[in-house]
Amino acid sequence: MKIGILTIGNELTSGKIQDTNTSFIARNLYPLGWQIVAMLSLGDDDQAIKDGLDFLLARADGVIVTGGLGPTVDDMTAAAIAKAFDLRLTTDEVVLRHIKERMAGHNFPWTENNAKQALFPEGAERIANRVGVAWGFSLKINGKIIAVMPGVPKEAEDMLVEGVLPLFRREFSDPDQVATRIIKLAGASESAVDHSLRDVPFGDLGVTVGSYPRFPELQIVLTARDAQREKALAKVARAEGEVVKRLSPYIFAYDEDTLEGVVAALLLGRNLTLALAESCTGGLIAHRLTDVAGSSAFFERGLITYSNASKEELLLIPPEIIKKHGAVSKETAVLMAEGVRKTARTSLGLSVTGIAGPSGGTAEKPVGTVFIALADGARTVCRHFSFNWNRQRNKVISSQWALVLLKNYLTDGWDHEQ
Amino acid sequence: MKIGILTIGNELTSGKIQDTNTSFIARNLYPLGWQIVAMLSLGDDDQAIKDGLDFLLARADGVIVTGGLGPTVDDMTAAAIAKAFDLRLTTDEVVLRHIKERMAGHNFPWTENNAKQALFPEGAERIANRVGVAWGFSLKINGKIIAVMPGVPKEAEDMLVEGVLPLFRREFSDPDQVATRIIKLAGASESAVDHSLRDVPFGDLGVTVGSYPRFPELQIVLTARDAQREKALAKVARAEGEVVKRLSPYIFAYDEDTLEGVVAALLLGRNLTLALAESCTGGLIAHRLTDVAGSSAFFERGLITYSNASKEELLLIPPEIIKKHGAVSKETAVLMAEGVRKTARTSLGLSVTGIAGPSGGTAEKPVGTVFIALADGARTVCRHFSFNWNRQRNKVISSQWALVLLKNYLTDGWDHEQ
Repeated sequence: MKIGILTIGNELTSGKIQDTNTSFIARNLYPLGWQIVAMLSLGDDDQAIKDGLDFLLARADGVIVTGGLGPTVDDMTAAAIAKAFDLRLTTDEVVLRHIKERMAGHNFPWTENNAKQALFPEGAERIANRVGVAWGFSLKINGKIIAVMPGVPKEAEDMLVEGVLPLFRREFSDPDQVATRIIKLAGASESAVDHSLRDVPFGDLGVTVGSYPRFPELQIVLTARDAQREKALAKVARAEGEVVKRLSPYIFAYDEDTLEGVVAALLLGRNLTLALAESCTGGLIAHRLTDVAGSSAFFERGLITYSNASKEELLLIPPEIIKKHGAVSKETAVLMAEGVRKTARTSLGLSVTGIAGPSGGTAEKPVGTVFIALADGARTVCRHFSFNWNRQRNKVISSQWALVLLKNYLTDGWDHEQ
Repeated sequence: MKIGILTIGNELTSGKIQDTNTSFIARNLYPLGWQIVAMLSLGDDDQAIKDGLDFLLARADGVIVTGGLGPTVDDMTAAAIAKAFDLRLTTDEVVLRHIKERMAGHNFPWTENNAKQALFPEGAERIANRVGVAWGFSLKINGKIIAVMPGVPKEAEDMLVEGVLPLFRREFSDPDQVATRIIKLAGASESAVDHSLRDVPFGDLGVTVGSYPRFPELQIVLTARDAQREKALAKVARAEGEVVKRLSPYIFAYDEDTLEGVVAALLLGRNLTLALAESCTGGLIAHRLTDVAGSSAFFERGLITYSNASKEELLLIPPEIIKKHGAVSKETAVLMAEGVRKTARTSLGLSVTGIAGPSGGTAEKPVGTVFIALADGARTVCRHFSFNWNRQRNKVISSQWALVLLKNYLTDGWDHEQ
C-alpha cells in the first residue's frame, strides 16, 4: 500500500508554522508496512492543490490531506478538491447539526461562514471530529482514496487513528490487526542497540523493528500484523522479550509513558517521598517531575543550590568539604543528597552537581563532569558521569540519568549498583 | 521569484525524524518576498527524486534540496540528481581535500566511501560547509537553479544563510539588501496585536510584517529591501518605531535574544543577584535562567517549596498566614519573595505560587490561579493571574510572566506597577 501525504496552508509555506502532522502520520503508517511515497506541503491555492493531488495520486493508492477545513476564506481545501475532480459541493446535514450543537455548547456565536465547514464534495463520506469543530471527509476517485483532516494537530492526530486508518484498512481490504510496542531506552547509542539486537530474528518472529533517537532517549518500535489481534500481540510480546533480554538495563518506559511519569508512579505506589538538591541541572529535574499531575503527593521540595553558600546553609555541607574536594565532587554530591533528605524529612534525597559548561571546566574536571547521588537513609550511592554535549544538553542528559538512577532504585533497590 | 523545497531521506518518510529544514528555509525565504510554491519530502530513491525535481522545476525558478549527502549507500542525492539530468559525476578535488583535512583534524579514520562526498554532477558549483563534512553544490538547469545542502539542520541552516541565499540573489539578479527585525512579545494575543497595528502603513514604509505565535510568546517579523543596506535598515527601524509606540509594554526581546537571556544580561549589567521561590512552576524559572551560560554570577539559589512545610521552614512564612489565606494567595506569594531574598541575601527575590492543575482548583481559586511577587528590599509587588491552559502550559506561561515582571523591574523600576 502506497500513501501520499498532503498538508495545506499558507502558514506552512511561509514558515510560520512548523508542520508536525506529516511526521505524525508517517510514524503511524510506517509500522503498518505502508509506504509513504511523498510528503507535500502547499499553500491555500486551488490550482496548486489540484496539481499536488495529481502528483500524489499518480504514485499512491491513497492520499491523506490535512489543513484548510476552517471557517475563513483562506480555508479552501474542500472547494479545491471538489473543483479538481469536477464535483459539486453539498451540505452534510449531520455535520452541520454537529457544528451548531458544538458551538452552542461552547457559547460561540454562530456566523454563516461556519456553515462552510459542512460543505463537502458530493459523494464524500464524513469523518467525525471528536476533538474540534472541523469534520473530515473521504472521497473515492478511480479506486483511490483521498482522506481529508483538519490541520490542528490534536484534531488531526485523533482523526487519523480513530477515523482514517480504519477507513484505509477497510477500503484496501487490509484485515490485519496491528500491534505496536514502543520501548524507551536511556544511555544506549543507536549503533550499540543495533549491535545488541543483530542476532534477533525479527523477520522470523513476524515483527518489524525501527529505532528512533529522541534526545535524551532512544525509542525502539516493534510492530506485528495478524488477522487476529491476540496473535499480533503475541508476536510483539515475543520480540519484546528478546529486546528486554539484551537491553534490560537501558529500558525505562514503554509506549506513551515518560521517565518522570514512571518515577512518579513508582514513588506514589510505594508511598515514598522525594526531595531534590540540584546544582548544574538548575531545577530541570524538579520541572520534569512537577509536569506530572499529582506530583505534590510525593515531591516535598527541591533546592537549587547554585552557590557554595546555599549548599552550606541549606544542605548543611561543611565548608571544608567543598574547599577540599570542590563543589563538583563525589563528596559534595553525597552530602547534598543526604542533607536534603534529612532537612526535608523525605524517604529519598536525590542530588546532582556538575559543570554544564561552556566555561568552568578544568583539566581534572572538564565541562560535562557530573556527580549524581541518591540517599535513602540506609545508604547513599553516587555515580560519576562525563558528558560531552553543550550546556543545555548537558543539563538534559544529567536530569535523565538522575531519574534513571532513581527509577532503578525504585524497581530493584540497590542491586544494580553493585 | 518562486522557490520549491525538496527534503530527501527515508528517515523523513518513515516519520523517524521530524523535518525542520523545510520550515527553517521557508522562514528565511518568506521575508525576501520569494514565494514557496511547494515543499516536498521523498525517500532515498532516484526515480522519486527525479519526479520530484520535475514537479518542482515546472513550478519554480529555483529548488533548494536538503539531505542525502552523507557517506553511506543510502545517501544518493548527488547521484540521483546527476542521473535525472544525464550528467556524469566528477570528483571535486577542493572538496575532497577539505574532507580529508577535516577528518584528520578530528582523528576520524578515512574510509573510501568518504570520497563519495566529493562526487558532484559535472558543472556543479560547490558550496562550502563551515559546520560539517558534507559540502553542498548548485547546478543550473535550463536557467533554473538547484542548490543542494546536507540534511543535518545545523549544517543546512548555516549553508542556507551563508551560501545558498547569496547564490540565489546573485543568480536571480536580486541586488537588494534585506533587513529583518524580530520583535518578541509576551501577553498580547495575535488578534490584539493585529488590531493595534492596523493603522500602521507598513506598505508605505516599504516593510512587510508577519506575526508568528510561538507559545508562550508572539513574534512580529519586519522585513525591508533596498539596494543600500542602510536604507533597508532605516525602513525597518521606522516600522519598528511604530510597533514600539503601540506595543511597548508587551515587548521583551529582539531578534535572537530570549527572555531569560535578556533578564540575565540586565542582572549582570546592574550587578544584582537573584533568588527564586517557586511553587507551581516547579523549578521551570530556575531551569530557564540556568540555561543561560554564566548564570551562576547572578543566580544564588532557587527554592522549590512544593509543600507547606517547606514554605514555612525555608521561607519563614508563619503557618497562620498559610492557614488563613492559603498557600496560593497574595499574602503567601509576597512572603515567599521576601523570605527567599532575605535568607539568600540577594538583591531580589522572585516568587510564584499557583494552581497548575488539572486538580486542586476551587470555586474561589480555580485551576490557573497564579500569584507572582517580586521583592527588592524596599518594596514588594504581587500580581494575580488567571490562566486557562493545561498543567504544562500553565507552568510555562507562569514562568514567562514571572520573568517579564522581573525584566520590567530591571528596565523601568517599579514605574509600570503603578
